[in-house]
Amino acid sequence: MELIYLDHAATTPLSARALAAMQPYLTAQYGNADSRYSLGRTASLAVLSARDKILSLIGGSGGNLYFTSCGSEANSWALKGVCAANFGKKSRIILSAIEHPSLLRAAEDMAVFGFETELVYPDSLGIVRPEAVEMALNRGGAAFVGVMYANNETGVIQPAREIYSLCRTAGAFYFCDCVQAAGSLPLKCDFADGISISAHKFYGPKGVGALWLKKGTKIARLISGGQQESGLRGGTTNVAGIAGMAEALASSCEDMQAEGERVRAIRDSFVSQVLTLVPGARLVGDSANRLPSNANIAFPGCRGEEIMFALDRLGLCVSTGSACSSGASKPSSVLLAMGLSEEEAASCVRFTFGRENTAEHTSIAARAVAEVVEKIKSK
Amino acid sequence: MELIYLDHAATTPLSARALAAMQPYLTAQYGNADSRYSLGRTASLAVLSARDKILSLIGGSGGNLYFTSCGSEANSWALKGVCAANFGKKSRIILSAIEHPSLLRAAEDMAVFGFETELVYPDSLGIVRPEAVEMALNRGGAAFVGVMYANNETGVIQPAREIYSLCRTAGAFYFCDCVQAAGSLPLKCDFADGISISAHKFYGPKGVGALWLKKGTKIARLISGGQQESGLRGGTTNVAGIAGMAEALASSCEDMQAEGERVRAIRDSFVSQVLTLVPGARLVGDSANRLPSNANIAFPGCRGEEIMFALDRLGLCVSTGSACSSGASKPSSVLLAMGLSEEEAASCVRFTFGRENTAEHTSIAARAVAEVVEKIKSK
Repeated sequence: MELIYLDHAATTPLSARALAAMQPYLTAQYGNADSRYSLGRTASLAVLSARDKILSLIGGSGGNLYFTSCGSEANSWALKGVCAANFGKKSRIILSAIEHPSLLRAAEDMAVFGFETELVYPDSLGIVRPEAVEMALNRGGAAFVGVMYANNETGVIQPAREIYSLCRTAGAFYFCDCVQAAGSLPLKCDFADGISISAHKFYGPKGVGALWLKKGTKIARLISGGQQESGLRGGTTNVAGIAGMAEALASSCEDMQAEGERVRAIRDSFVSQVLTLVPGARLVGDSANRLPSNANIAFPGCRGEEIMFALDRLGLCVSTGSACSSGASKPSSVLLAMGLSEEEAASCVRFTFGRENTAEHTSIAARAVAEVVEKIKSK
Repeated sequence: MELIYLDHAATTPLSARALAAMQPYLTAQYGNADSRYSLGRTASLAVLSARDKILSLIGGSGGNLYFTSCGSEANSWALKGVCAANFGKKSRIILSAIEHPSLLRAAEDMAVFGFETELVYPDSLGIVRPEAVEMALNRGGAAFVGVMYANNETGVIQPAREIYSLCRTAGAFYFCDCVQAAGSLPLKCDFADGISISAHKFYGPKGVGALWLKKGTKIARLISGGQQESGLRGGTTNVAGIAGMAEALASSCEDMQAEGERVRAIRDSFVSQVLTLVPGARLVGDSANRLPSNANIAFPGCRGEEIMFALDRLGLCVSTGSACSSGASKPSSVLLAMGLSEEEAASCVRFTFGRENTAEHTSIAARAVAEVVEKIKSK
């Protein structure tokens, strides 16, 4: 049975190019990047070159890039580090209700130190309106504002630039989680004070991400340690992972437009097939401002979970909610925040397309979905 | 020129066995360990099996193992997480002055929240005496005590078991950084409330480590996020890295005794050759209670840095201080804490032996050291 993987928002296969870029540092070039002899310098040059490459790909020359172990680390660090640097001065955190748990829970974790969090809700299309952020900002005292670039469950793209402009006026730090967007949308780091990316979302390895911060940002360390990452993030540098991430991002950026159009066409075709074949099915979230890869579809009268397991038996990988929350088996908090009922939210399935997917996959998948839904409904 | 690598305390080459264990998760088995379809379950089973294997190798059945991205993360998390869980209750941190920067700096980072740190100094052999820890404990209010198992610069083994007993009496959490010890010394997690390990120190990959905590430990999250690691450490699981770490630790434990004896003989032979060939050279730190791999030698009248660079030109990798601090180019704070003068501390070179090293390497290296020191002195 050929596997049809339609869960690229959860993770992507490591590309051959990225793995090849990692290989030397998994074998002969094993030096510690902080060692000053030649074996170490080879490693540190690889890291330097990866840093420059990524900075250039994300248009980040106005800031610094710090390597982390994942998007969640970058997000947690940004929130906790900026809050700690404001301890005793500002004590409010503003987050959209559709942020990733790494920000929502990081904010909860700061409550013990006296930080209070206000959630800003999206509209029914999944868009966080700048006016809603503005109202929250007007209450004053915000140390940190977090509204992501593109949502991981719906793919809906947020008005980051407008929100940044409001935050600047209010003197609040604006952080934009770009984990789901990086590799799919062109990034130029002039729409936020800080952004995060994660390699495994764009065909790079798991276990490596990065935090970009505008020059002059005051932030406390999360992972303390040696002189690594300008003394702001300790830990022996994951040279192979970093080399793999840079190569993966470069290759995603090279064919971003063409691949984006190809994936969008496949996704659109899949959605229209499913909506035709399955009575009552509907696309959740804005259809225009959306990552080209994402289709989040509600199947009223079914449980998304049941669809997911049935499709798995047919060799199709899809998800309900995000992988990060899927341990929980509760309806998605993102969809609930958009105003869906618990039942509607629990009926949704996320399909996210990627490089290996073909037009043929969409018809196999759409037919499989229709069959599975019919079978569930007729039970 | 054949490279003779004598810096295994900085990092070790990834073993072929560990790389082979990683390979499936770098290629076909790319699923997110939190995805509930079969591709995801394969990944989560690999993580489960790695966790069980490591828990059994470190005798950790009385606690839980949480995967991290490195030893520094595990150390920072332990300190910051235990302190945050004590916020408003206990506010003192006791650390030995020879702890790794990931603990020393984590303690500094907690000062903003009102935590105060007391340093306990080692004796001239590099041993932190239990009585010194007891005096610090007697002042009361300690939330966290950190004294490592074996020092990364001198290899000197600390009286962890006695210190743990004192901490239990005082009701303080005792954390034992085992990053340098794991893979070289047998571990059984009954000598501390928490320990840390790091894969790349025992021929595993860079970018993965673990924190073990006794059951019932109250700790706040450092990296917030999804349900990963029982909801205590967010971030998409680094499946390949974790599989590699478990395999590397298993293989280190398999031949720990024989390899330890082999390396000890090589190290002892190297030390005696150097002390014979280089007038004035002396071994720094206790010679009995010491990792079998470590030789830290003072070369009075020379700068260790100069020796290190000269040896690099001859194809020998050695270090001054730890790689983590080597960006700094200051004399080692560990050696200063042991009472060495700045000049003496700056004259030291750390040689750490490992799997690929042979008896022949020791004579080549000892002769090279003697030549280099003579040349430097005659300048």
